[in-house]
Amino acid sequence: MNIIYMDNNATTKIAPEVLEAMMPYLTDYYGNASSMHSFGGVVGRELNAAREKVAALINAEPGEIIFTSCGTESDSTAIHAAIRSQPEKKHIITTRVEHPAIKNLVEYLGKNGYRVTWVPVDKTGVLDLDYLYGHLSDDTAVVSIMWANNESGVIFPIDDIAETLLARGIVFHSDAVQAVGKIPVDVKKTGLNMLSLSGHKIHAPKGVGALYVKKGTRFSPFMIGGHQERNRRGGTENTASIIGLGRACELAGTHLAEIVTRVRALRDRLENGLLEKVPNALLNGKKDARLPNTTNISFEYIEGEAILLMMDQLGICASSGSACTSGSLEPSHVLRAMGVPFTAAHGSVRFSLSTYNTEKEVNFVVENLPPIIERLRNMSPFWKEGACKVQ
Amino acid sequence: MNIIYMDNNATTKIAPEVLEAMMPYLTDYYGNASSMHSFGGVVGRELNAAREKVAALINAEPGEIIFTSCGTESDSTAIHAAIRSQPEKKHIITTRVEHPAIKNLVEYLGKNGYRVTWVPVDKTGVLDLDYLYGHLSDDTAVVSIMWANNESGVIFPIDDIAETLLARGIVFHSDAVQAVGKIPVDVKKTGLNMLSLSGHKIHAPKGVGALYVKKGTRFSPFMIGGHQERNRRGGTENTASIIGLGRACELAGTHLAEIVTRVRALRDRLENGLLEKVPNALLNGKKDARLPNTTNISFEYIEGEAILLMMDQLGICASSGSACTSGSLEPSHVLRAMGVPFTAAHGSVRFSLSTYNTEKEVNFVVENLPPIIERLRNMSPFWKEGACKVQ
Repeated sequence: MNIIYMDNNATTKIAPEVLEAMMPYLTDYYGNASSMHSFGGVVGRELNAAREKVAALINAEPGEIIFTSCGTESDSTAIHAAIRSQPEKKHIITTRVEHPAIKNLVEYLGKNGYRVTWVPVDKTGVLDLDYLYGHLSDDTAVVSIMWANNESGVIFPIDDIAETLLARGIVFHSDAVQAVGKIPVDVKKTGLNMLSLSGHKIHAPKGVGALYVKKGTRFSPFMIGGHQERNRRGGTENTASIIGLGRACELAGTHLAEIVTRVRALRDRLENGLLEKVPNALLNGKKDARLPNTTNISFEYIEGEAILLMMDQLGICASSGSACTSGSLEPSHVLRAMGVPFTAAHGSVRFSLSTYNTEKEVNFVVENLPPIIERLRNMSPFWKEGACKVQ
Repeated sequence: MNIIYMDNNATTKIAPEVLEAMMPYLTDYYGNASSMHSFGGVVGRELNAAREKVAALINAEPGEIIFTSCGTESDSTAIHAAIRSQPEKKHIITTRVEHPAIKNLVEYLGKNGYRVTWVPVDKTGVLDLDYLYGHLSDDTAVVSIMWANNESGVIFPIDDIAETLLARGIVFHSDAVQAVGKIPVDVKKTGLNMLSLSGHKIHAPKGVGALYVKKGTRFSPFMIGGHQERNRRGGTENTASIIGLGRACELAGTHLAEIVTRVRALRDRLENGLLEKVPNALLNGKKDARLPNTTNISFEYIEGEAILLMMDQLGICASSGSACTSGSLEPSHVLRAMGVPFTAAHGSVRFSLSTYNTEKEVNFVVENLPPIIERLRNMSPFWKEGACKVQ
């Protein structure tokens, strides 16, 4: 069966060009980049080239890039760096809709000596900036706000926030795992202190990420060990994957124009097709402030997981909520923060496209999903009653 | 030029069988193991199979294995788990010869509220058990002792230490990164609480490791994030590398007999050949208590780095000290802890073999290294004077 993969915010296919760049380092060039011999030295040079490519995608300096094992590690590293280097400050600000990598970490810190402010979003997923700015204090160690939400796709005004925080001298981190490669991200223009990105969201392999740390930002390592990454991250460098990440960043720069045009048009075609064909289908997230590849639609009165299972039988891959919280019976914390009613939040499906998707695939989904929704609703005890109420 | 790779304690070649097992997950099967769709589910099943293979190599239960990004992360996870789950205990015991992943972490903790006992070794690298046992206290949160030293190859009596610590109810962790795959490691027999292992030391790729956590050991995650690894390690699973680690553990089990016989014989041939042919060459580490693949030899009155550079020109890869501390001008902390005189510590070279090494390669080194040593000594101002003194 052909797979129609529309779950690219969960993870992406490794680009063939990326795998090609990695292969020499999975076979012949297996030396340790930190070794004295030239067999390791060759690898060290390629690591530096990869660092330049990652830096170039977000307009950073190569020395400002620290390679990590994933977006989660980048996030943990950023938050720990901020709080360890300012031990006198005991306040953290983040949002109600962060990825679990920040949400669960900050919740942990909230139980261990830190006061936490959770900035709310409105029903379209837009951040309450007045609430954010109203809670800044001299005790604030770090503000961590994602660049774009993984579930709704809503983009936050990072440039504006950074300007305000910089003026106040408050350390600002952004989890940009979903933004990098999908919309322009320029750390010099934005001026924020730290930014997380992840390889497997941009067609590099799983198990590699990076943290941007602006020159001059106080830092303390999270992964303490050897001298790697200029004493900022211990552990033997994951050579092949880092080189893959470098290549993926090069490709992401090249493909950005296609994502904001062709992929966006595909997403719109999918979204409009489904919203037109299916009654009681609601768009989650502010229409004109979203990632170009993402749409999140609630099909009222049925279960998202049932929809996913039926789509799965046709080879269509999508998700309800985030893969990082799946397995839970609760509706997503993001949709709850947006105040999406339970009857709709339970039936939400996220489609996230990539440059590999085609118009034919989109047409297939627009054609085949509405009958699935109808069949499920006909089996649902809530549908008839609910639909009567809302119509 | 042919490479003669004798730096396997730094990193190893990915076994072709391992790469073969990984390839489907670097190409077609790129789903997220945590996704709802069956495209991700396939991957999830292979992760579980890998977990069983890793567990089998060290006689653990699959549920006791947590996948990490490297040995350093496994070590950090173990130490943090021990101290976070026993916040009232403020004493840590480790050795003077640990890998930087433990050494630098414990030094950091020593500056941040913890009392640290550093157990010494004697001049053959053997641990002072009386010192260790004499410093145990009710305040000891964790004892962390490597299973085998990465530089000298000396094996520590983990079984005996575990017995004593278990009887005292003290949490015991071992960094077994260099031991696993080279000597038998049986966590059930030993009874220790936590054990770190790393993929790239046993012919799996860089960027993947595992932590064994004995059932019932109190745990608190180091990498806080998504629900992965049953809430014990956040971050999207590094599928391909984890599957590679599983295959590598299978192979390691199969190859163990060859390492303790054929590879040991090669190591002995190399060691004896060099010690016989080169005057003022000293073996570092207790001869009969070492890893079968490792030899560390000091060539007095010359610089290890000069030796490495000359060997490099012949394609021979070895190391002086650990790759994780290279770049430093100081002699290795391990040799210093063993009291190796500076004149000898500076000229130390570690050869670490694998099943890929051949007798022909060993003969080449035994033939070609002694003239290199002689040439370097002839250029050394210390040699004539020093050699006269000692002979």
